[in-house]
Amino acid sequence: MTKSPASKTKATVWVVEKGKVRPKLDQLTTEEPLEIRLVSPEKTIAVTMRSPGADFELAAGFLYNEGVIYSRKDIQRISYCVDGEQRYNIVNVALTEGLTLDLQPLERHFYTTSACGVCGKASLEALRLRNCSVILPVPTITPEIIYSLPEKLRSAQAIFTATGSLHAAALFDAEGNLLKLREDIGRHNALDKLIGSALLADELPLNNHILMVSGRSSFEILQKSTVAGIPIVCAVSAPSSLAVSVAQEFGITLIGFLREERFNVYSGLERICTT
Amino acid sequence: MTKSPASKTKATVWVVEKGKVRPKLDQLTTEEPLEIRLVSPEKTIAVTMRSPGADFELAAGFLYNEGVIYSRKDIQRISYCVDGEQRYNIVNVALTEGLTLDLQPLERHFYTTSACGVCGKASLEALRLRNCSVILPVPTITPEIIYSLPEKLRSAQAIFTATGSLHAAALFDAEGNLLKLREDIGRHNALDKLIGSALLADELPLNNHILMVSGRSSFEILQKSTVAGIPIVCAVSAPSSLAVSVAQEFGITLIGFLREERFNVYSGLERICTT
Repeated sequence: MTKSPASKTKATVWVVEKGKVRPKLDQLTTEEPLEIRLVSPEKTIAVTMRSPGADFELAAGFLYNEGVIYSRKDIQRISYCVDGEQRYNIVNVALTEGLTLDLQPLERHFYTTSACGVCGKASLEALRLRNCSVILPVPTITPEIIYSLPEKLRSAQAIFTATGSLHAAALFDAEGNLLKLREDIGRHNALDKLIGSALLADELPLNNHILMVSGRSSFEILQKSTVAGIPIVCAVSAPSSLAVSVAQEFGITLIGFLREERFNVYSGLERICTT
Repeated sequence: MTKSPASKTKATVWVVEKGKVRPKLDQLTTEEPLEIRLVSPEKTIAVTMRSPGADFELAAGFLYNEGVIYSRKDIQRISYCVDGEQRYNIVNVALTEGLTLDLQPLERHFYTTSACGVCGKASLEALRLRNCSVILPVPTITPEIIYSLPEKLRSAQAIFTATGSLHAAALFDAEGNLLKLREDIGRHNALDKLIGSALLADELPLNNHILMVSGRSSFEILQKSTVAGIPIVCAVSAPSSLAVSVAQEFGITLIGFLREERFNVYSGLERICTT
């Protein structure tokens, strides 16, 4: 029997501070897909990237909030999948017999995610199947270039300045010059806009570029970066466990907690010129 | 012809600082759904809540990042819907003739959103149709209770403390006592878990409760709060335009930028006892 995934994942990271590097034991937020299934009719209702834990509550809350069920009584039983490697990433919900289900709102308003499977491993496999190859270890950059990115991103964020509430994704060249910035209320939308802009200008792949995002880096951010061939991804905050796995697998330099003259490197230290 | 939605929306807010209230002109980030449609085969590919602007790039980037298209050449034309009230919330993508499409990954891994229509108005209408009624103007609370919430939320955030990277949703009673807290890498998941927990314990509706979320408040946060009957919603950061619309429509007190002895009230000031 497989073990339930933990909510935290241990990792060794490299802290780059004032140009010096040192290793550090760290903890990452675990990110794994969860598939919510109805038992009868047998149907997958949603696949969502989540932090493991409180999975039955997540399934119940999702069904309630989306208008599939209306009270506690509508649920007969919630359980994990009986067996298989992914059992803790699949929740089966048996609804009370005789309940009239209206699944139509869910069908009309589906929204695709980058969750390409129901375990981290399957999500990585899906990227491999899309012919995403390991990104070559160029370019190399100095810590000073990286330190300079947050301020450049912030000063270019026009809407954020007015409203204080937008995510941004920005593309820099290997010298740290800002090339493009896109903002959106959703992190994934900001990155879709940025990469879409490069696509429409026929600039892909972005093999000599640095991506900087305003928030955290999740699987979805790394998945999109991998597809676009971006070798260096920086975030103001922390990465998830699955983001680090994708970065390691595809040879991406992943930087987090980039603030003033300090950052953490979770993967691909070889691109950073340090003393 | 309707106008393209602006990326910012003007609003009057009430600033509550050290127990005093004053009005202030403010700007909100606009939030509106965008539907991405293929022209042939005619098919809705995604409905996503986004900030208006760079919509063609968003559609192109989405199709590329999800593996529907592989290069600039695969796109023949991108345009807004020809007419209708929602024309700027619908983007039509005509792909190059003869392209072999694999939409199956999208179909297998759909993920439902709370986006119940393709304009803000339709999204509100969908909530009305779910029999969400206006929440009665109780309870009333003091600014001091509200000031105390962020610190209580933060000190209860076990995983955040370890990893520095999780969203939280917490439920308080009208005296400001913490009842439940749930964390997740996704804001909506944290709230689904919290409301799911209340549902499984048969505690719904939550008519005498305060919700506090760690990030911003979007349509989705307010949609879930409305369904659960929560009268007071507080966030550390800013709300979107559509979040404010839902709060006004359903009589929810919406508080943002809650930091130390200061917050903004976007709707439902009558529940706050001020001098």
